Amino acid sequence: MASARYDGNRTISVCDTVPVQPSSGEVRIDVSYCGVCGTDMHIFHGAMDARVAPPQIIGHEASGVVAEVGEGVTAVKPGDRVAVRPLFFGGPAAYDRGHSHIGKNLKFIGIDAPGGMQSSWTVPDYTLHRLPESMPMTHGSMIEPAAVACHDVRLGEVAPGETVVVIGGGPIGLLIALVAADKGARVLLSEVNSARRGLAESLGLETIDPRSIDLVGAVTDLTDSAMADCVFEVSGSAQGAEAMTELGCGRGRIVMVAVHPEPKPVNLFRFFWSELRLIGARLYEPQDFNEAIQLAASGKLRLDRLITQITPIGDVQSVFEAIDASPDGVKYLIDCR
Amino acid sequence: MASARYDGNRTISVCDTVPVQPSSGEVRIDVSYCGVCGTDMHIFHGAMDARVAPPQIIGHEASGVVAEVGEGVTAVKPGDRVAVRPLFFGGPAAYDRGHSHIGKNLKFIGIDAPGGMQSSWTVPDYTLHRLPESMPMTHGSMIEPAAVACHDVRLGEVAPGETVVVIGGGPIGLLIALVAADKGARVLLSEVNSARRGLAESLGLETIDPRSIDLVGAVTDLTDSAMADCVFEVSGSAQGAEAMTELGCGRGRIVMVAVHPEPKPVNLFRFFWSELRLIGARLYEPQDFNEAIQLAASGKLRLDRLITQITPIGDVQSVFEAIDASPDGVKYLIDCR
Ligand SMILES: [Zn+2]
Ligand SMILES: [Zn+2]
Repeated sequence: MASARYDGNRTISVCDTVPVQPSSGEVRIDVSYCGVCGTDMHIFHGAMDARVAPPQIIGHEASGVVAEVGEGVTAVKPGDRVAVRPLFFGGPAAYDRGHSHIGKNLKFIGIDAPGGMQSSWTVPDYTLHRLPESMPMTHGSMIEPAAVACHDVRLGEVAPGETVVVIGGGPIGLLIALVAADKGARVLLSEVNSARRGLAESLGLETIDPRSIDLVGAVTDLTDSAMADCVFEVSGSAQGAEAMTELGCGRGRIVMVAVHPEPKPVNLFRFFWSELRLIGARLYEPQDFNEAIQLAASGKLRLDRLITQITPIGDVQSVFEAIDASPDGVKYLIDCR
Repeated sequence: MASARYDGNRTISVCDTVPVQPSSGEVRIDVSYCGVCGTDMHIFHGAMDARVAPPQIIGHEASGVVAEVGEGVTAVKPGDRVAVRPLFFGGPAAYDRGHSHIGKNLKFIGIDAPGGMQSSWTVPDYTLHRLPESMPMTHGSMIEPAAVACHDVRLGEVAPGETVVVIGGGPIGLLIALVAADKGARVLLSEVNSARRGLAESLGLETIDPRSIDLVGAVTDLTDSAMADCVFEVSGSAQGAEAMTELGCGRGRIVMVAVHPEPKPVNLFRFFWSELRLIGARLYEPQDFNEAIQLAASGKLRLDRLITQITPIGDVQSVFEAIDASPDGVKYLIDCR
C-alpha cells in the first residue's frame, strides 16, 4: 500500500508499506482522503524536525472506512465511515487538571506518531467518530480542521447577535468565521490575500483588507463604536497581536488560535482598562468533533467551496510544492484510496 | 474645613474649604480616614496631570459618617458609618455591554472629580456602603483597596485547594493573597522587598524573593510540577509579564491587576499550548464592596497589620514624601477628622 513519508529536506516520498495489524483496542481504516494542514507545511519546511523524526508518515486530517478491528473494539465495525481525532492520550498529569487534549503526555498522531497520508492506517478506537452515510468522504477529511474551529468558537463563547472579528482567513480562519456566523454572530474577516477574501465573500462573509483599510477604524465604524464581542487571532502575525487588543468591547474576549513562536508585544493596559480576556485554544475535545460533523452534514460549513485541489497520493510532493508556490489556496486534499 | 489639594509639582497643600451642600441624591459625609493609594502617588508625581486638573482635592479610599443627606436619599441617614465606592456612572455606552464599572463614561472620584482627602465630602448616595458598628473607621478606609482584591479574586475564580501565585506584594498584592487564602487556596507571594515579605510571612503567607530564587523553578518544586491554577500579576514589571505565563497549569488563569502603561513582550505561545487565560480586572462592582466589608469585619484581612502610619491631614505633604522615601511601607492613612 502507498504511504507519504516525510524524509526531511522538503521531500515527501511515496513508499510501499505494509498495513499495521490492529492490536487490542485498535482499528485499521482504509483511508479515503487526508488534508494538508499548516502543520504539515511546517514539517515539510523542516521547522519541526526536532519533534518529527524523518522518515515519518505524516498527515492528520483523514477520513476513512473501517477495514479491521482489534480485540475488544465495539464502537465501530468494518464498513463504518469515520473521521479520526488524531490524539493519543498518555497518562494524565497533575498539570493537565483533567484537560487531556492539552495534556503533558499527549501525543499528536501525524506528528509524534505515523499519520494518515497512507492508504491503510491503524489508530486507537477512541480516536474515531462515525460519519453520516450522506457525507462525502472529502468532507469527512475536513472534520478535523472544522473541529478546531468549533473548539475555538466554543471557548470564545460566541452568542447570537454578537460582533466577531477573525484576524486571518486561511482554512482555520474561514472555518471559524463560518462557525461563528452559524451561531448568529455578525462576522468580519480580516485577510490580506485577495483570493481568500473573494472566497470568503462568495460564502456570504464580510471581509476587510487590513493593508488597505485600518482594521480598528473599520470595526469602530461598523459597530458605531460598540466594538467586537469576540476577536479570533488566527494570523500569527505581529500585526494580529497588536490589533487583537484594540478591537474588543468592555469584557471583550480574544481567542488565541494562532501559533506565535516568539513572545510579541501585547497591550496589557487594555486588558486592565476594559477587562478584556485572552483565551488560549488548542486542538479539540470530542464534543467539537461531534459538532463539526453535525455542521458539516447540515451543509452550513460549505466544505465543497473550501477545497482547492484533490490529488492522488502518488503526486503528494507536487501538492506541498503547489501550496508553497501559491498563497491563494485553501484546502488541498490527498486522495489515499 | 481642611482639604488636601494637589497643586502640581509634587505639592499637596492643605486648604480651608467650604463643605459642599448635598443636592438631590447626594450625601455629605464627615470623612474619618482616607488612605493613600498608588494612584495618588502617580498623581503626586505629575504622571496624571492630563487627567487630574490641579489644583484638585484627591483621595478615594475613605471612610466617614453621614452628616447630611440631599433630597430623595433614603439609603442612608445622618450618623451612618460608611465607606465610599468612588465611581460616578455616566450614561451607559454600547461599548460597555452593561459593565458600568468599566464604562466609557465612568468618572473616578478622586481623579476625575474632587476626592476624599477633606474633612467633609459630598458624593452620590449610590456610592455608599454601610459599615458595621464594630468596624474601626481606619479599617473602613481600607474597604476600597480590599474591594479591588475581592474583585480580582472573584474574576480569577479562585477555588478551595487551588495553588495561587501573586506577583507583587504591595497593598493590593497582599490583600489579594489574603482574600485568595480565605477562599481556601494555597498562596505564594512573590515580592522583591524584604520588609513586605516579612509582613506577609507574619500574616501566615508563603513568600519568595524572585531576585534570589527562580520563581518558575520554585513553583515547579512547590507543586511537584502541577503548577499554579491562578496567577495574579500585580507588579507592573516586565519580569512579572514574563513570569506570569510560565507559572500556570493547563487552562490556568492569569489575572491582570497591574497597570502596564507600555506594551510588553508576552509569550502568546503558552496561551495556545496550555489554553491559558488572561483575565483583565479593574476596580470593583458593588458585590465586591459587600464582600470586602464582610471579610474585614471577620478579621480575616488583618487590616490592622497593613497600616504603616496614620497622619493628620495637616501633615499630608509629609506622608507623600515618606512613601516616596521608603519602599517598605504598606498602607498610609490620612486622619481627616
Ligand atoms: Zn491540522
Ligand atoms: Zn486606589
